Amino acid sequence: MPRPTRLSIAALTEIVTGIFLRAGLNDIQARSVAATIVAGERDNCKSHGIYRIAGCLRTIEAGKVDPAAEPELQHDGGPLIRVNAGGGFSTAAFSVGAPVLAEQAAAQGIAALVINDCTHFSALWPEIETLTEAGVAALAMCPSYAAVAPSGGTAPLLGTNPFAFGWPRPGRHPYVFDFATSIVARGEIELHRQDGRTLPEGWAVDAEGRPTTDPHAALAGAMLPFGGHKGSAISTMIELLAGAMIGDLTSPEALGALGSTALLPAHGELIIAMSPARFAAGRPGDPFARAERLLDAIAGQGARLPSERRFAARAAAMRDGIALSAEEMAMLEELRAG
Amino acid sequence: MPRPTRLSIAALTEIVTGIFLRAGLNDIQARSVAATIVAGERDNCKSHGIYRIAGCLRTIEAGKVDPAAEPELQHDGGPLIRVNAGGGFSTAAFSVGAPVLAEQAAAQGIAALVINDCTHFSALWPEIETLTEAGVAALAMCPSYAAVAPSGGTAPLLGTNPFAFGWPRPGRHPYVFDFATSIVARGEIELHRQDGRTLPEGWAVDAEGRPTTDPHAALAGAMLPFGGHKGSAISTMIELLAGAMIGDLTSPEALGALGSTALLPAHGELIIAMSPARFAAGRPGDPFARAERLLDAIAGQGARLPSERRFAARAAAMRDGIALSAEEMAMLEELRAG
Repeated sequence: MPRPTRLSIAALTEIVTGIFLRAGLNDIQARSVAATIVAGERDNCKSHGIYRIAGCLRTIEAGKVDPAAEPELQHDGGPLIRVNAGGGFSTAAFSVGAPVLAEQAAAQGIAALVINDCTHFSALWPEIETLTEAGVAALAMCPSYAAVAPSGGTAPLLGTNPFAFGWPRPGRHPYVFDFATSIVARGEIELHRQDGRTLPEGWAVDAEGRPTTDPHAALAGAMLPFGGHKGSAISTMIELLAGAMIGDLTSPEALGALGSTALLPAHGELIIAMSPARFAAGRPGDPFARAERLLDAIAGQGARLPSERRFAARAAAMRDGIALSAEEMAMLEELRAG
Repeated sequence: MPRPTRLSIAALTEIVTGIFLRAGLNDIQARSVAATIVAGERDNCKSHGIYRIAGCLRTIEAGKVDPAAEPELQHDGGPLIRVNAGGGFSTAAFSVGAPVLAEQAAAQGIAALVINDCTHFSALWPEIETLTEAGVAALAMCPSYAAVAPSGGTAPLLGTNPFAFGWPRPGRHPYVFDFATSIVARGEIELHRQDGRTLPEGWAVDAEGRPTTDPHAALAGAMLPFGGHKGSAISTMIELLAGAMIGDLTSPEALGALGSTALLPAHGELIIAMSPARFAAGRPGDPFARAERLLDAIAGQGARLPSERRFAARAAAMRDGIALSAEEMAMLEELRAG
């Protein structure tokens, strides 16, 4: 097996940014999309790394994202901040809204950022980490495509609706989770199909709404939510808050609007930020110290904190560079050549 | 079998309020606790109905709740509202804070209510419904007692940490869920023990942290979170936001402070309210109509919306009165006699 190529984070960022600039994205779009993709690759989240470039390019070529979009900030000084992505990528809109969100949360205690009219492809944890670095706790959520049947239901309706949270830990990596509210990502079912393996019970229903362990039948049917009716309720909450409430598309509306899951969905996103320093002001004890005792007790039982693997991969990438296989380097070369 | 006694909601409210007034609670404490207990009984949530009176009285008698507490509102006009319960019940503090929370959310888009220094015994859905009646969406959460092992862990650390959400549906009952982030309520494990049944796999670990299906071993060990590592992450988030962040006790701290699970825990609570009208302002479409399409599509698949059973029981209670068995009536008589 050939040795992997090792690229510095800066070098990979330059390559990926260049691919998107050449595809016609303006500066803020290209840089924000590239930063998110490189963060995925750096943290060894391959499903959100350079593998995503092709889908982004396909969506640009199909005219479903505005490559020249300039995110528009709308803020009246209160705790509700809106960025209209103008049909551009969510990452660009977030880069405009995040500093205002963190500032307002620090000043007022709680604030919310709404992103509207965006094309979405990104994991939520890079956004969460931007906010924890600014010293605030954050919750983020968004719809996606109708792909998941509600608990007790029979057909795709809810999205895989990611739910993410972060808590700042001074001097350490933050406590961060970011997961799909489906029992698994759709890619997991694809992998089972490719490998000819049956699915575990409880992952999916077929096109008639019957439980199935056949990955083909599952892909023609619907995935199920994590955690039974509780996960289904949380996924529904995400449709209501980060779809209906923010005046943007729910997952069935997003699928209806685009008519295909081969392109990236257009919808909105909701991020809530809270300042522990403000919430705990005047109260006994230090909120960060109290949190450390809890998190240390979790780790002390041998339970893994979420994102630990990502942080370990990040440390390795910062030390040794990002390792890319010969196939990955060839893919990058092809994308650069256009 | 003798026919149940049927009491009107007003009549049961008077009886339960009288019990708490005679136990020494001041007016706001007695009325708010009684209203919550009667709401549980009315909705046939027996686990949060009159069965809870004895535990409240035990906690009052033990001197662990201040019967004369007057909740103190702290609000500087911003989106962060605090009510110090002064060692009284959370229900009284909520009754003071809720109107301000709803008003601020309607005016500013998002607002948060922190309740500190309260004794907690109540389900969260009565609070959620107070807010949806005021036209705002709401999220509520609180720690409880260390009773649940984190996913991958071996010992009680997290609470059963309830997570509740509501969305207002004009002219209809709201969309409301309220569930423990443990896989089941502790009472379910008690019931299995009483009935001599083994537990399903995945509910609990024994005192050595090994998976168990023996209810005795489970009660000496720890429950597990719902939904594996995802539910565990949400439960941890609740400890961080509604414990550490608000300057109040986490579940292990609450157990440590009281030293017993036979009395009601003292800690805080966090409620976030958001105004769909404000969040959707200026956006195409009506957020409430968009939500109805989603919720109708869920019900149209034959999937149950959360709280439907409660609303059906409520309609029956409002029509026919609340049905109480001879044993329940005898219990009430005994509590009245003191």
